[in-house]
Amino acid sequence: MTATETPTAEAEGWLARFSAALSAGDVAAATGLFVDEPFWRDLLTFTWNVKTLEGRDEIAAMLAAVLGNVRPAAWAIDGEATQTDGITEAWFTFETAVARGRGHLRLDGGRCWTLLTTMTELKGHEELKGPRRTQGVRHGAVKGRRTWLEERTAEQAELGHGRQPACVIIGGGQGGIALGARLRRLGVETIIVERNARPGDSWRNRYRSLVLHDPVWYDHLPYLPFPDDWPVFTPKDKFGDWLEMYARVMELNYWGGTEFLGASYDAAAGEWAVTVRRDGAELVLRPQQLVFATGAYGYPRMIDFPGADDFTGTTLHTADYQSGEDFRGQRCIVIGSGSSGHDIAADLWEHDADVTMVQRASTIVVRSETLMELGFAELYSEQAVERGITTEMADLLFASMPFRLMPMTQVPLYEEIARVDAPFYERLKATGFRLDFGEDGTGLMAKALRTASGYYIDVGASDLIADGEIKLKSGVGVEHIGERSVTFTDGSELPADVIIHATGYGSMDEMVERLISPEVADRVGRFWGYGSGIEGDPGPWEGELRNMWKPTHQEALWFHGGNLHLSRHYSLYVALQIKTRLEGIPTPVYGMPAAAPRPS
Amino acid sequence: MTATETPTAEAEGWLARFSAALSAGDVAAATGLFVDEPFWRDLLTFTWNVKTLEGRDEIAAMLAAVLGNVRPAAWAIDGEATQTDGITEAWFTFETAVARGRGHLRLDGGRCWTLLTTMTELKGHEELKGPRRTQGVRHGAVKGRRTWLEERTAEQAELGHGRQPACVIIGGGQGGIALGARLRRLGVETIIVERNARPGDSWRNRYRSLVLHDPVWYDHLPYLPFPDDWPVFTPKDKFGDWLEMYARVMELNYWGGTEFLGASYDAAAGEWAVTVRRDGAELVLRPQQLVFATGAYGYPRMIDFPGADDFTGTTLHTADYQSGEDFRGQRCIVIGSGSSGHDIAADLWEHDADVTMVQRASTIVVRSETLMELGFAELYSEQAVERGITTEMADLLFASMPFRLMPMTQVPLYEEIARVDAPFYERLKATGFRLDFGEDGTGLMAKALRTASGYYIDVGASDLIADGEIKLKSGVGVEHIGERSVTFTDGSELPADVIIHATGYGSMDEMVERLISPEVADRVGRFWGYGSGIEGDPGPWEGELRNMWKPTHQEALWFHGGNLHLSRHYSLYVALQIKTRLEGIPTPVYGMPAAAPRPS
Repeated sequence: MTATETPTAEAEGWLARFSAALSAGDVAAATGLFVDEPFWRDLLTFTWNVKTLEGRDEIAAMLAAVLGNVRPAAWAIDGEATQTDGITEAWFTFETAVARGRGHLRLDGGRCWTLLTTMTELKGHEELKGPRRTQGVRHGAVKGRRTWLEERTAEQAELGHGRQPACVIIGGGQGGIALGARLRRLGVETIIVERNARPGDSWRNRYRSLVLHDPVWYDHLPYLPFPDDWPVFTPKDKFGDWLEMYARVMELNYWGGTEFLGASYDAAAGEWAVTVRRDGAELVLRPQQLVFATGAYGYPRMIDFPGADDFTGTTLHTADYQSGEDFRGQRCIVIGSGSSGHDIAADLWEHDADVTMVQRASTIVVRSETLMELGFAELYSEQAVERGITTEMADLLFASMPFRLMPMTQVPLYEEIARVDAPFYERLKATGFRLDFGEDGTGLMAKALRTASGYYIDVGASDLIADGEIKLKSGVGVEHIGERSVTFTDGSELPADVIIHATGYGSMDEMVERLISPEVADRVGRFWGYGSGIEGDPGPWEGELRNMWKPTHQEALWFHGGNLHLSRHYSLYVALQIKTRLEGIPTPVYGMPAAAPRPS
Repeated sequence: MTATETPTAEAEGWLARFSAALSAGDVAAATGLFVDEPFWRDLLTFTWNVKTLEGRDEIAAMLAAVLGNVRPAAWAIDGEATQTDGITEAWFTFETAVARGRGHLRLDGGRCWTLLTTMTELKGHEELKGPRRTQGVRHGAVKGRRTWLEERTAEQAELGHGRQPACVIIGGGQGGIALGARLRRLGVETIIVERNARPGDSWRNRYRSLVLHDPVWYDHLPYLPFPDDWPVFTPKDKFGDWLEMYARVMELNYWGGTEFLGASYDAAAGEWAVTVRRDGAELVLRPQQLVFATGAYGYPRMIDFPGADDFTGTTLHTADYQSGEDFRGQRCIVIGSGSSGHDIAADLWEHDADVTMVQRASTIVVRSETLMELGFAELYSEQAVERGITTEMADLLFASMPFRLMPMTQVPLYEEIARVDAPFYERLKATGFRLDFGEDGTGLMAKALRTASGYYIDVGASDLIADGEIKLKSGVGVEHIGERSVTFTDGSELPADVIIHATGYGSMDEMVERLISPEVADRVGRFWGYGSGIEGDPGPWEGELRNMWKPTHQEALWFHGGNLHLSRHYSLYVALQIKTRLEGIPTPVYGMPAAAPRPS
């Protein structure tokens, strides 16, 4: 950038050179426009994948492989670029042969440091919205007209019976519902299969005191944001009601009270046989595309402690915990110190139970208020909204930072958090509570993305631990369980009426094994994490979450989920990919990683 | 405006002089800033009324009466002013002693032609939204905590039983629901009483083929607009579903299946006794404030034709019509040529009934497509949205044009409509159909506001009439009814199996008489219309809709309703007025008209 050149002019200049190089098929020229260690994250447009190319060589290899098919064009800076600390940032739009896209770039010294390209819509298969919205009625006189209600009723009666859906989504929580809305707007006939009776029940059935731990601006569903008086933290039942309402007004074909029994793929026919139980009868659905949207986790994991069969008290997993009212006055041992373990220990204390938390491994703890101020404020907050950061922009900005650069932003953040809350952490550590900020100091969000476990956003339990109200046994494991007690590896013994396994969940691959087959589970491999190499997320480095929102090693099988932000944002890409398969649009996938070995 | 002065500078200058005059209490100086024939429409801020002051004298009288109490201040132009055809337009904000406001002005030759001042919120009683939204949970450990669900459940159990609501709304259609949402956000405990079981039923129960006649941009409810793929014209059942979900997520206390039996006011106690029947039992609610939100109309009006008792066929009012399926192949006479008459005649034709429409009076007909392009496009359309006209802005712009100026905008519009659709009108008139564009040429919307009758937005019936598919008898009345026929005043007789009274509804005052008392009905007087002097809306001129959304001659009794635009916009002012009464904020009402005599 010259002395007189505005950031916008700089960005426009760079984009013009980039566009020219790509149009000329000049890979070397294109990669020469990047810094020495660049990152290009592509969501479908170039790679038909969710893919980060790291370094010039990877970028060059990708372009060489795909440029001829992709035929990118119509690159244009959108709005004004900005410059902060020498980095120029800009938004842009572009097109490919079959799609339209939106992206974000960061320039450092005139060359591109991070590039994000994302697909927004498929040409010829745009959502019917805005000026293209439907009329709602055929004006004029039409004999034999069917009203909206009659069409809807007929659709619900026929789909899955007389007419097979193009897509089936297993799991009707926020992920399945968000994806269902996206697919409907793309005209893909979809059935959502959910074991609970009503949309929202998966939240209603959680423990009584649960509220969302992420703030409202992070949690919007696609197309219909929460109204502006929605509370910062949504109580579980209120969220359940919203999901129920959303599924209704988005006209989703939601099969509640329907149990998914299993699925198998017929490659020759290009369809799945999906067996469900509904109204007491088994039924086979035959969609071309199948999505697991059952959550980030697999089955609840109970630890098989020696002597467990001798225990005369109550044993349960946090997944089945409802309320401390059931355990008032009882001696409760909560084994595990993640989110559920903390929430439930606090709920037990509020109901005058005698609570001890057993911390088996170090935990990342961040105070909710601190995380709101320091973690969320930039992208997902009232202030961000006031600064003009829409939910869509926040999602794209979040996506524009590759996993490899996470330490760069997260380590300083957690150093700041440690400073700001030093007294809090001191009090907590003084109890013997084992704290960490991640093996490499990258903190809570990185931990969640790597292992989906081992952290707690503090909304009150930590003070109870610090004050000794929730008792703590740390740095020990369970040796064995007695008739009415638990003995630890340090020889100590505690009486116990209730043992609660806050021991997390298995991984999605167990569900795939049980509900599709061991062969498919092996073929698809490990889920979640991105190869950071820390405990629970072994290498090699992948740089993207395994198997999430992208093609897997099982044809026509997709996995959707994650927190509300990820469910919202990535539902778009899952829906677009499904649409392309159904429309027969060629989608040569670039850079699909080998399946990582399943956890042992 | 000087040659070099921008519209914004002109508007700022005018506003500064206006502000200075008001602050100095200099009424003469303030009124001198207006043109010779100005209009100032105030929604609460100055007059605690919905009031148009017409002319300098009325403005001066109002200011002299209220200025000392209102203490307006902090006037500021908001955004950039624009200039078109010599008229400068600008938005502004301001404050009063107790409220904040927003307004719009039009300057002509440097002086004010139209001024709109509206209340947006009460100081100290702001809605809990945005940065002031609730947390949703009390973080920290709290024994005896009640979850959201427990609070909601308790509220629903107690309100109306152990604890009386501050406000009761009779009628749970879109008006009652919109108002209920506004009141909840102002912290006013409210019960909505609705005879039908579920929110939305008042729409579900309408005739099968009904869709909204106004386009989506006109129809949004407050706080939660329809998503951007919502159809242009909403089918009745889809709208019913939206209302049901809206009532749920807005946490309204909605008493469905509850019949309102009557109410009486105890002025000494400052409360109403509202008798309802719910779950088979009578119950008395004791709110301080009562709102009728039962719709723009009173009871269905059947005409008592001579010989009606002899008729052996089926007789019904359009309010009870469901579907032409019930009348397939039968000879149907539809008496009346308004919206319902046309819709139902078309529905009968679609079901192969033999239909004759009896047109007793001239009708205003406009084609839906034409009305969309020429009538709605400026404020409520996709194009308006793209031009940056939000729903709130559209509502305020609509409100900024006083009734007195309606001919100025509407007459040319209808001349254009007549030109554009001349062939259509020729074909229709050739059948003998009696068309008009209002006594003074002001067209459909003016007619709706004056009499709420006598018009049809054509969505297909007119072509059927023009083509003779729907037969027409026009310019005659019904002489008498035979056993299976109808004889007209011209001596002709038609066989009939079904007689449908598309004869409209009575006026709200009948409901007030029956459900409160004749005394209160007489005291409150006539509803709707604004004194235009045309048939159905006798003078004297009032310039505002009688009794709607503003204080009435019965203390603590309000009337809310109108189409979806009016329900949405004016629900704000009804809610604010109710809040002020409950908070004991003084609200000296200026310029309340005498009650107009009830229709005979």
